[in-house]
Amino acid sequence: MARIVMKFGGTSVADLERIRNVARHVKREVDSGHEVAVVVSAMAGKTNELVEWTREASALHDAREYDAVVASGEQVTSGLLAITLQSMGVNARSWQGWQIPIRTNNAHGAARILDIDGTDLIRRFGEGQVAVVAGFQGIGPDNRIATLGRGGSDTSAVAIAAGVKADRCDIYTDVDGVYTTDPRIEPAARRLKTIAFEEMLEMASLGAKVLQVRSVELAMVHKVRTFVRSSFTEPDAPGMDDFDNPPGTLICDEDEIVEQEVVTGIAYAKDEAQISLRRVADRPGVSAAIFGPLAEAHINVDMIVQNISEDGTSTDMTFTIPSGDMDKAVAVLEKAREAIGFDAVQSEQGLVKVSVIGIGMRSHAGVAATAFTALAEKGINIKAITTSEIKISILIDGAYAELAVRTLHSVYGLDKT
Amino acid sequence: MARIVMKFGGTSVADLERIRNVARHVKREVDSGHEVAVVVSAMAGKTNELVEWTREASALHDAREYDAVVASGEQVTSGLLAITLQSMGVNARSWQGWQIPIRTNNAHGAARILDIDGTDLIRRFGEGQVAVVAGFQGIGPDNRIATLGRGGSDTSAVAIAAGVKADRCDIYTDVDGVYTTDPRIEPAARRLKTIAFEEMLEMASLGAKVLQVRSVELAMVHKVRTFVRSSFTEPDAPGMDDFDNPPGTLICDEDEIVEQEVVTGIAYAKDEAQISLRRVADRPGVSAAIFGPLAEAHINVDMIVQNISEDGTSTDMTFTIPSGDMDKAVAVLEKAREAIGFDAVQSEQGLVKVSVIGIGMRSHAGVAATAFTALAEKGINIKAITTSEIKISILIDGAYAELAVRTLHSVYGLDKT
Repeated sequence: MARIVMKFGGTSVADLERIRNVARHVKREVDSGHEVAVVVSAMAGKTNELVEWTREASALHDAREYDAVVASGEQVTSGLLAITLQSMGVNARSWQGWQIPIRTNNAHGAARILDIDGTDLIRRFGEGQVAVVAGFQGIGPDNRIATLGRGGSDTSAVAIAAGVKADRCDIYTDVDGVYTTDPRIEPAARRLKTIAFEEMLEMASLGAKVLQVRSVELAMVHKVRTFVRSSFTEPDAPGMDDFDNPPGTLICDEDEIVEQEVVTGIAYAKDEAQISLRRVADRPGVSAAIFGPLAEAHINVDMIVQNISEDGTSTDMTFTIPSGDMDKAVAVLEKAREAIGFDAVQSEQGLVKVSVIGIGMRSHAGVAATAFTALAEKGINIKAITTSEIKISILIDGAYAELAVRTLHSVYGLDKT
Repeated sequence: MARIVMKFGGTSVADLERIRNVARHVKREVDSGHEVAVVVSAMAGKTNELVEWTREASALHDAREYDAVVASGEQVTSGLLAITLQSMGVNARSWQGWQIPIRTNNAHGAARILDIDGTDLIRRFGEGQVAVVAGFQGIGPDNRIATLGRGGSDTSAVAIAAGVKADRCDIYTDVDGVYTTDPRIEPAARRLKTIAFEEMLEMASLGAKVLQVRSVELAMVHKVRTFVRSSFTEPDAPGMDDFDNPPGTLICDEDEIVEQEVVTGIAYAKDEAQISLRRVADRPGVSAAIFGPLAEAHINVDMIVQNISEDGTSTDMTFTIPSGDMDKAVAVLEKAREAIGFDAVQSEQGLVKVSVIGIGMRSHAGVAATAFTALAEKGINIKAITTSEIKISILIDGAYAELAVRTLHSVYGLDKT
């Protein structure tokens, strides 16, 4: 017997037929003797509808009222799933965030979970009751509903799993796991059986949109074994109750992964823009002079590369931002030209960042060199490089995105089982 | 300055344009210097949609889960109205039933309000804040959302008014007040400026569907002056802020009504059926033998008339029920024939109960005789009569319904100002 948290997103509970399918997944785990909490999102489309209404009511709306309106979507789904489970003979009840309670900070609309009291839920597990928890929400210190921001139900699920000390948090989604790269680009991409928290964090933040980044962070901190699997596989399909050979990907501590690969996956992020400031005065405080105004303008800067120029008294500063912010960023920098001190701004859109990710590269040399050689052989020009302990990110022209992903996927042997 | 509770129903908040109209009504009262709490229903159609989903999920659903699902409709409206008020510069916040809290009993789906703690609301009135309260709901002793049953927002509003010791509870509705009778039947029907609680109770329970019966009972018990007015009148229309000459009807204590009329209104209830048991053995317990089985079959018995028959040893028992229950009632009685002991069952459908209502008749003789004479002059046959202190109800053939209403309306001078 295990204690499991199961999470189902909006498309999995889009209508009553799908909610019945979710209930059958839950019943399967209950029938296997497990203690179960289920976390649900709003029915697909509902959250957008509610958000749109708050915008229509006022463009500048009170985030606390936004939360009261938008959180109603998950409230509905939790009640409907509880009813459906009961009709199948499963003892179940719904829980709103304020009932458990799931305590958050006061950042309405994008609140962070501070604490979950799992006492009541655990007591009811003991009585054989399934908890159906409305995702995406908790209660703030002001005793008002606080939502966690879009996609927050993943975070709810992991937090509940930590709060009730679950053995596993199953995230049911419209994909059947995490792949070595995007299968739409590389058909030979393989589903990973396991991936370490740190690797998943890099995959998620780079655009492999299986799980919300915050939920992976939370899973890593609390060591919640998180299992990504498909909600559209039939509940009674072979292997669905066989966790030793699971139809999904387990995100877990690296110690649990027996055969660690050097490289686990290739991620990419589209629509990047690059800005270069030429001949920036090389003096203390110049980075602050550049990135301060950009931060104030809410422009998210990603890769930053700094080179000493030939004469040794000035520097070239290159960084990437989302393409959509490029014109705004150039305007901000031109306005700050005197304060910063530079010769020229150069900018380029339509770039792609391709990343090689793997915990194994910490103990293996030559991983980066392999990537550079492979891309050079295909004639792909590298515009910028940044590296971390477990990741190499390479900025290239967008036209070469697919070729680069396939090349790197192959050169690290990810297409071989 | 007064303290006012304003209540708006589903059609008044059906979309964001109408919600803006509601906000303008609220702003008018705030600008007049009043302290204001607003109680809102769900957007028109939303509650039906949510109820239908709970039925689809399971015909026999847990009432506590039904409540969690259905109460979300009012939660949405309360947040949207708060946002809209804020955008007009009005300091406002939404309140869910569990936040105030509005404490109810445990009868989920049809809960009764036990207690409202108005402390927090009153403190915020002092800070100039408008409370926007989600109607139709509270929190049960099990710490779960409990709804008050359909139309419960009227009851919420009156209960909030009692809880915060409001000077008045304004019920905004799609009619502009309570009329001496149904204007669709008698175009000369007049809007009443005032009506006593007891009279309104009779009017409401007899099918003048302006206010929920329970809300009138509650208003009577707590002496909440309740003002029925139109939400579709423009907020800045003449007289809307002139409570001394109000465009609506004030339901209040009879002591407040200076010029009490003998008869206040003529109500009617359609689709009544009459059942007569002939030659029932006249013995103790016979009433229980008849009405016990009917109650067990959930058949609502209204008028009951008992006459001693000629021979003095048996009696004729006549009563009315909703037409739709007639066949069921006859079957129940036939089954209990031996236990009851009677000669025959006679039944008739398509009847109408017309009622003359007025507190003044307590101190005036001859009110009933006037009705009987007037109906007789029009050739309308009376099938049964019941009376209370402030009401005379007459059962007639349905074909004469409109004629009877118009005749009685005229004979008591209700068509004259």
